[in-house]
Amino acid sequence: MGSDDTWRPSGIVTLLSDFGSTDNYVGQVKGVILGLAPQARLIDLTHEVPPQDVLEGSFQLATAWRAFPPGTVHLAVVDPGVGTERRAVAWIAGEHCFLTPDNGLGTLVFQQQAPEVAVVLDREEVFRRPVARTFHGRDVFAPVAARLVAGLTLDRLGTPIDPLSLVQLNIEPVRRTGTHTTGPVVSIDRFGNCRSLIGPEHLPAPPDRVLIRCGAARIRGIVPTFAAVPPGRTLALFGSHGGLEIAVRDGHAARAWDIARGAIIEISADG
Amino acid sequence: MGSDDTWRPSGIVTLLSDFGSTDNYVGQVKGVILGLAPQARLIDLTHEVPPQDVLEGSFQLATAWRAFPPGTVHLAVVDPGVGTERRAVAWIAGEHCFLTPDNGLGTLVFQQQAPEVAVVLDREEVFRRPVARTFHGRDVFAPVAARLVAGLTLDRLGTPIDPLSLVQLNIEPVRRTGTHTTGPVVSIDRFGNCRSLIGPEHLPAPPDRVLIRCGAARIRGIVPTFAAVPPGRTLALFGSHGGLEIAVRDGHAARAWDIARGAIIEISADG
Amino acid sequence: MGSDDTWRPSGIVTLLSDFGSTDNYVGQVKGVILGLAPQARLIDLTHEVPPQDVLEGSFQLATAWRAFPPGTVHLAVVDPGVGTERRAVAWIAGEHCFLTPDNGLGTLVFQQQAPEVAVVLDREEVFRRPVARTFHGRDVFAPVAARLVAGLTLDRLGTPIDPLSLVQLNIEPVRRTGTHTTGPVVSIDRFGNCRSLIGPEHLPAPPDRVLIRCGAARIRGIVPTFAAVPPGRTLALFGSHGGLEIAVRDGHAARAWDIARGAIIEISADG
Repeated sequence: MGSDDTWRPSGIVTLLSDFGSTDNYVGQVKGVILGLAPQARLIDLTHEVPPQDVLEGSFQLATAWRAFPPGTVHLAVVDPGVGTERRAVAWIAGEHCFLTPDNGLGTLVFQQQAPEVAVVLDREEVFRRPVARTFHGRDVFAPVAARLVAGLTLDRLGTPIDPLSLVQLNIEPVRRTGTHTTGPVVSIDRFGNCRSLIGPEHLPAPPDRVLIRCGAARIRGIVPTFAAVPPGRTLALFGSHGGLEIAVRDGHAARAWDIARGAIIEISADG
Repeated sequence: MGSDDTWRPSGIVTLLSDFGSTDNYVGQVKGVILGLAPQARLIDLTHEVPPQDVLEGSFQLATAWRAFPPGTVHLAVVDPGVGTERRAVAWIAGEHCFLTPDNGLGTLVFQQQAPEVAVVLDREEVFRRPVARTFHGRDVFAPVAARLVAGLTLDRLGTPIDPLSLVQLNIEPVRRTGTHTTGPVVSIDRFGNCRSLIGPEHLPAPPDRVLIRCGAARIRGIVPTFAAVPPGRTLALFGSHGGLEIAVRDGHAARAWDIARGAIIEISADG
Repeated sequence: MGSDDTWRPSGIVTLLSDFGSTDNYVGQVKGVILGLAPQARLIDLTHEVPPQDVLEGSFQLATAWRAFPPGTVHLAVVDPGVGTERRAVAWIAGEHCFLTPDNGLGTLVFQQQAPEVAVVLDREEVFRRPVARTFHGRDVFAPVAARLVAGLTLDRLGTPIDPLSLVQLNIEPVRRTGTHTTGPVVSIDRFGNCRSLIGPEHLPAPPDRVLIRCGAARIRGIVPTFAAVPPGRTLALFGSHGGLEIAVRDGHAARAWDIARGAIIEISADG
């Protein structure tokens, strides 16, 4: 538990959920945090994760957290199992602290940075009482986030568990061998762009000298922007989320090539 | 006016409106508050109340305010009458201060907690000038919110009125007699779930031993989660908003049972 | 560069973009700002500008900035040219500082208040590294905003340029001669209301004694609210955005009168 001693709160709490914006749920979570930690700085990542879509939630978390300073608390709730026996957990990775249901929401973060410390959030005296069966974001995670901002360490907020015991989604990590890189499509946006977490550092050859395959699609070279190809053409580029993305300019790549989440992108040196 | 003396600002201002997110109206309201009270903490409840839907605004306000600490200012603007002779008012209930048009937006809060003090906001020297005829959120309510955060008391911001004179919507409160509880459906969400403010404390018998009627629907017992019934089945549960809700799993209860807002839910002990 | 010396940060940073709310891009921008300037106050104007619609972005910026106190930084990114040679710029107008791509996003602000100082943001040592080709909001503009909040002046953040060299959209300003006022429709909202920046101060006669023409529409007098005319009637009023707006009550003015953005509204004294 030594690494727990390194926790120095930045005062920032990010919030990620599938709560949407038509109801006041996000506001309630924030009210509880500020009631306990008036100094907290609250930043929304997104609350438009499709209902109960844990993998998309994991993608949004994994692509956002490194924009924040060390000591940030990330409160992420996409929680189909709320009210059942699934655990509520907290874990530290790379000096950031994540509060999530133990349902795989951390999977893509784990692939970037292994969690060093983890606890089950089982200290009921910390919770907002009574705990609503379907609203642990407000009654369990928010009070814990506030205590972390106030400087409490994880060992005061839960019981240590092996970080390797945290639930993970069955989704391939990015892998690089000498001449090949593979990684799954982990998010498809509303425009049909197929997004992975394959970064420039994973390429087996310079961007203009790779061959990319995904399903029936074959793409030669990675272009810098959409504008580099004519309308209707399939392309590969590094998207604003930071990873390789397969797209059709002015089109819908997922439908055009029948690509679903989990489809493997293969990259090899071209010639 | 003695209870006015108890006002101690938390520094938090919540914002609720039907302004939506495509225009910059909410941002402007916040700019005016921060220009006058840089220390204010601004939290959105929702701005997606359907245009001019005062009852839905009241529902969102009533289900959110108690998540915030005492001393919070709630600025709520759903205001079909803006620019007419309707009053702008401020009132204190349970150590929270509410700023609203006097059009019934507080109705469901009043049913939870009677307002103790109220004023008409008629001190034009406090307003942002000139006052735009259709934007009192920015020009009337925002400067008042800022002054409350800065520690001014209501008597400095308006003229006292009888809290009982505040406009109320014609919607039934939750009532409990010995063996019966009744209360109206006050909000129907986009999934067709029919939401009330009937809480666990209002039940005439344990949750698994009540009979619930609403329109033609008859439901035996309150279940803890949607997952407790098969798809297509009608159920009653305590929703994340805190009150009893009638739903159809994977269906649309309001359409299935022809339930409209205002429909009365009746609960009796079952057998 | 003397006016640069007058920069006193309010600590507020507004954010405007076409990033939408389904991805975490806005959150990332905020994370970078707070990592460098923990004291910054971050306020969203809107992130729902239609993708790459620079004129609508300019409208949202021009109608919002004056609600904020002097010393506010406005970070606005609607940036079809991101990753090309377009310049990233900062300019001061009326004691506010604007950070934008140099693509005309400031046009409607310039028509209200001429920029006094401008710089090209070319100090790479200030940027977040590496700079993502398609995400200058996070990697270029956010770190500059943070430095401005921290008190750095523009001359530390870029190379001075002539404010007159800033790119402007080809959209007419509001003009008033003795008896005539003209100005373009600059934004059409989702209800079909046709919005201009013509203010009460631009009218050639009292509001009830003007004749307004736009396309085939002819309107006598400006009314205070929608409610002043029967359903289906075309009207002119000063909208919540602060400028003259042509609307059809319960209808869609842009379609009814075939009005597009850029259409000129002409106002003359009536009789």
